[in-house]
Parts: sequence; C-alpha cells; structure tokens
Amino acid sequence: MSIALTILGCHSATPRINAHPTSQYLEINNQHFLIDCGEGTQRQMRKYKVGFSKINHIFISHLHGDHFFGLIGLIATFGILGRERALHIYGPKGIKEITVLQLKLSKSWTKYQLIFHELCSKESEVILDNDKITVHTIPLDHRVYTNGYLFIEKQKARSLHIENIKLYKEIEVCDYHHIKAGKDITLSTGEIIPNSDLTIAPPKPKSYAFCSDTAFKPDIVPIINDVDILYHEATFLSDREDLTNKTKHSTAKQAATIAKEANAKHLILGHYSSRYSDISLFKNEAEEIFENVELAEPGKRFSLVKEFTSS
Amino acid sequence: MSIALTILGCHSATPRINAHPTSQYLEINNQHFLIDCGEGTQRQMRKYKVGFSKINHIFISHLHGDHFFGLIGLIATFGILGRERALHIYGPKGIKEITVLQLKLSKSWTKYQLIFHELCSKESEVILDNDKITVHTIPLDHRVYTNGYLFIEKQKARSLHIENIKLYKEIEVCDYHHIKAGKDITLSTGEIIPNSDLTIAPPKPKSYAFCSDTAFKPDIVPIINDVDILYHEATFLSDREDLTNKTKHSTAKQAATIAKEANAKHLILGHYSSRYSDISLFKNEAEEIFENVELAEPGKRFSLVKEFTSS
Repeated sequence: MSIALTILGCHSATPRINAHPTSQYLEINNQHFLIDCGEGTQRQMRKYKVGFSKINHIFISHLHGDHFFGLIGLIATFGILGRERALHIYGPKGIKEITVLQLKLSKSWTKYQLIFHELCSKESEVILDNDKITVHTIPLDHRVYTNGYLFIEKQKARSLHIENIKLYKEIEVCDYHHIKAGKDITLSTGEIIPNSDLTIAPPKPKSYAFCSDTAFKPDIVPIINDVDILYHEATFLSDREDLTNKTKHSTAKQAATIAKEANAKHLILGHYSSRYSDISLFKNEAEEIFENVELAEPGKRFSLVKEFTSS
Repeated sequence: MSIALTILGCHSATPRINAHPTSQYLEINNQHFLIDCGEGTQRQMRKYKVGFSKINHIFISHLHGDHFFGLIGLIATFGILGRERALHIYGPKGIKEITVLQLKLSKSWTKYQLIFHELCSKESEVILDNDKITVHTIPLDHRVYTNGYLFIEKQKARSLHIENIKLYKEIEVCDYHHIKAGKDITLSTGEIIPNSDLTIAPPKPKSYAFCSDTAFKPDIVPIINDVDILYHEATFLSDREDLTNKTKHSTAKQAATIAKEANAKHLILGHYSSRYSDISLFKNEAEEIFENVELAEPGKRFSLVKEFTSS
C-alpha cells in the first residue's frame, strides 16, 4: 500500500523555455498511471526514467492543449516500441475521434488495442475498478468539460496474527483459511476467540486526488474527503483572484481551502501562471490556510509509504 | 539575397532522450518560414531564439507524427501570445480537418486567421509566389502522401551603374527610371548605349530544397536542378539499403546521388535512424559520391550570403 507521484510537468500553457505542461506519473498499489499528457510528456518520461511499458491506463482531464497535445505522440511512440498490450484512455468525449483521425491521416494504426473510455457525466462516477484500485471522476469547473480523478487503493484483507494464533494450540493450519475469511474460532472449551484477536488489520488504503484545471469548487469536497494527497491547481495568487472567474482557475488560497475542508493530509500545488517568477509565493499563501503544502516541480517525486516524503 | 537555415530537429521518429523530430526555420530573402513541426518544435524555437511573430507560413511535408505533431501546439501558442496576423499552413489534405477538430474540442478558436493550403497534386506546383520568393512542391515517395519544398528567391531587377551613367553627361536623373526598366539610351549623337552598360546585374537568386521523407526518387532531379542547398533525408547507411524499400526512406549514398545528379552546391543530411550512434558515418558515405556534405544537428545554422557557412 503506497503512493509515488512523479511530476513530469506542472506549468500553465504560456510558453517558456523551462516550462512543461501538465503531466504526472502515478504509482499506487503497484498500478501505474499517466495523468494528463501535455506536449513533450514523452520526453519528460524519458528524462525521469518512467517505464513506457508499465503504463496501461492514461487519464486526460480535459482537451486543452497543455493537458493532452502530447497524447498522440505517446500513442505513436508506444507503436514504434512494439507495444502489444491494450492501452486504456479515459477522457472527455471527442478524445477518440481526434486520436483516430490522426492515426488515419498518418496511416499509422497501432498494432496494440486502444480502448477509449469517453466521459460526459457531470456527476462523479467510478471509471476503473479492479482488485487493486478504484478510480472515480471528480467533476471540475473549467472552460471546457473537465474531470479530476480520485485514485483509492482497495482495502486489503486482514492478515493472520501468527503469534496470537499460536497461543491456542488446538488451532490448526487447516483453520487458517477460516480465520482469513473473517471467522471467529470456537475452542473445545466453548470459548470464542474473536477474529480480531487472530488477525492484523491491513494498512489503511491510501488515496490520491488530481484536480486540474478548475475554478474554486467546494462541491468536490465530499468526493475527496479524507484524501491522503490532493493535487490542486493554483494558477493565481489571491492578488489576481479577479482572473479566476473569467479563466476558471483557482488561487493558492482557494486550493488550500479545498484541502482544509476535505481534511486532506497533504496538498500539492501546480499549474502556476507564468506571471509569477517566484513559485514559493504559492506555498506561502496556501500555508496561511493549510499546513502541509508542497510545490509541484518537474522531476519532483512525492511518496507516501508510512511517511510522506518529497525528493 | 541570402539564406539562413536553422535546424530545430533532425532525427527520425524513434524516441530518444536527445532526439528532436524534424523541423527547420528558413530565412530566405527576408522571408521567414517554418518547415515541418514535430512534437516539441515550439520548445526548440524558444531554445534557438526563433522569433515566433516572424513566421507567417508553415510548410508540412507529410502527416507522420514526427513531422507535424507539434503544429497544433504552436498554433495554440501563437493564440496565447496574442497573434493577430493570418497564418498560412501548407500540407497534405486532411491537415485542416485535424487542426480544426482540435481547436473545436478545446474551444480554443484562434483570434487570428488560419489559412490552409491543402495539397493533393502528384506533380510539382507553385504554392506561394510573391515579390520575394517562389515556393514549389517537390513530390516525394513515402508511405503517405509527401511533398518536399523548393524555395527560390525572386530575381531582382538590375540596379543603376551610377559610375558608368555619369560618363554620359546628357543622361539626366529623369532618365533613370527608363534605365531601371531595362531600356537602352539613345544619345543626341544617335549612339545607342545598351542597358547592360548602364546597369549592374543583381546577384543570382538563391535556392533551397527540402526533401524529407522519401525513398530514392531521381524524378525530383529536374525540379531541384542547380539548387544551392539541398536538404535530403538519409535515414540509413547503405548497409541497410534493404530497409529503404519497405520504409520508403533513403541512404546517405542515395541522398548524395540526388545532390550530384541535380548539380546541387551543398548537401545537408538528416533524419538519421536511431540505429546509428555515430552520425559522421552518414557524411563519410555521402562524400564518396558528392563533395560538399554537411550534417544537420539541432541548433546548427547554415547560411549562404556570399559564402556557405555552418555554425
């Protein structure tokens, strides 16, 4: 049960020499996901040694270029590298048409299967559910249809507390599967040993929420409640809160307010407007509202195993 | 009358950390053109200080991703930068549909006009003709419909040879426009002074041919005959000539053969396959056929004013 998040790009769309548009590589409970894919993402993946072959699911928040213009190049590169495994792509309606048209025009059909999961609901929905993870959409408020994504590890079963079990000599190995299945054990004396004495609780499932791009939207708080790590965009500081309505972006203070109201454990900020040369101002502003604030930067890696660390 | 060519990217599609797909910035007779636009081109333009606002014409050879996946990002960036001037885009049929669909899905219509010149002819044709330059297509032989582009400076008018004119006292300033228009002058004695004595020939118009991607295609020789600078793809060395038929690419030797047969002055090679770590092998192979060979590399600048130089 662990999360590792590598920031591949975290800047807004305005072009600068050292800016990289949004993309993140998420490892959670041994699943590997790419979230958003701005132009140049495949280059950043190579730079930060993200294994191309591990990724089977790509989540695109919305169809603004700084969040998805790198997708078609990555799909083509997977083809060049001889990929055979199917690739799942989650994103707004239209993402299939645009991808298929480009493949058609370049006569570059992939030999691997592309499976599109086009989204159009305005309500949060489960879009991926397997034995390791559940992924929910987080409907956001931007100039085009946009979703954030909430990744929650699956609760593991309780494991055997061998030390305690061995205190009861009459419990045999063939009883273990009953214990694992959650049953209490009745001894020959009639004494009932509760399952909780014979098993160890698994670690609490960890969760990660990605919220970009969006205006301040407190409606999302119930969806992401108690999340371990929240990435929330902070395009502006409060000095330009006037711009958030028109552009449908957030300030650092607004991002921190969402983190606080959602009782998040950690907040990561990103998507900084190019008007600010010193991004530490975003951290300062957010820390007035919420304690555990980190700044996304290309190549930075945040991880949560027992402790939360960044490097 | 001059040419300056900046290589923004010159590698084939296989992803590598230090590879950049095809794009070139061409300054010719004070016109500024972008040729091909692989993913990441706008980043390379910033890196090599190519003025975004100077470019009014973009030429795309074909719709393989390593030659055009950067176009939509550049169009979006022009919009963010507040561009107002129209942008002309030349490329294969389909380039308009793909661009417009992406702008529609991202609700990011440009405030400047996009003028598409979609190509489908299999014969060379003039696609741009103004008082500075003529641009011809060079039909190539690749896996999808592909054109190279030939840029030829317009012949300037002869200029006044003031020193010679002044030898004839009766020629007055008001006669100058006749002389500039090419007329001979008849003196009062009846003597005719030929125009060629009174004017100076302009420098010979310079020309640049871009040929990528293509199999060996000697048909193009008459189109690019006597070209000053020829860029011709060389994806392989002759050791893998067997691959050129299937992939529709050329070897360095084939590129040099085209340069020789076309009586080009200078040959620039590029689009090297990633299988070769030492690109000097391409130069060596081509030099067995043709003398003046240069290797394209990102950031390299070739110029031709009086002399041909590279830096």
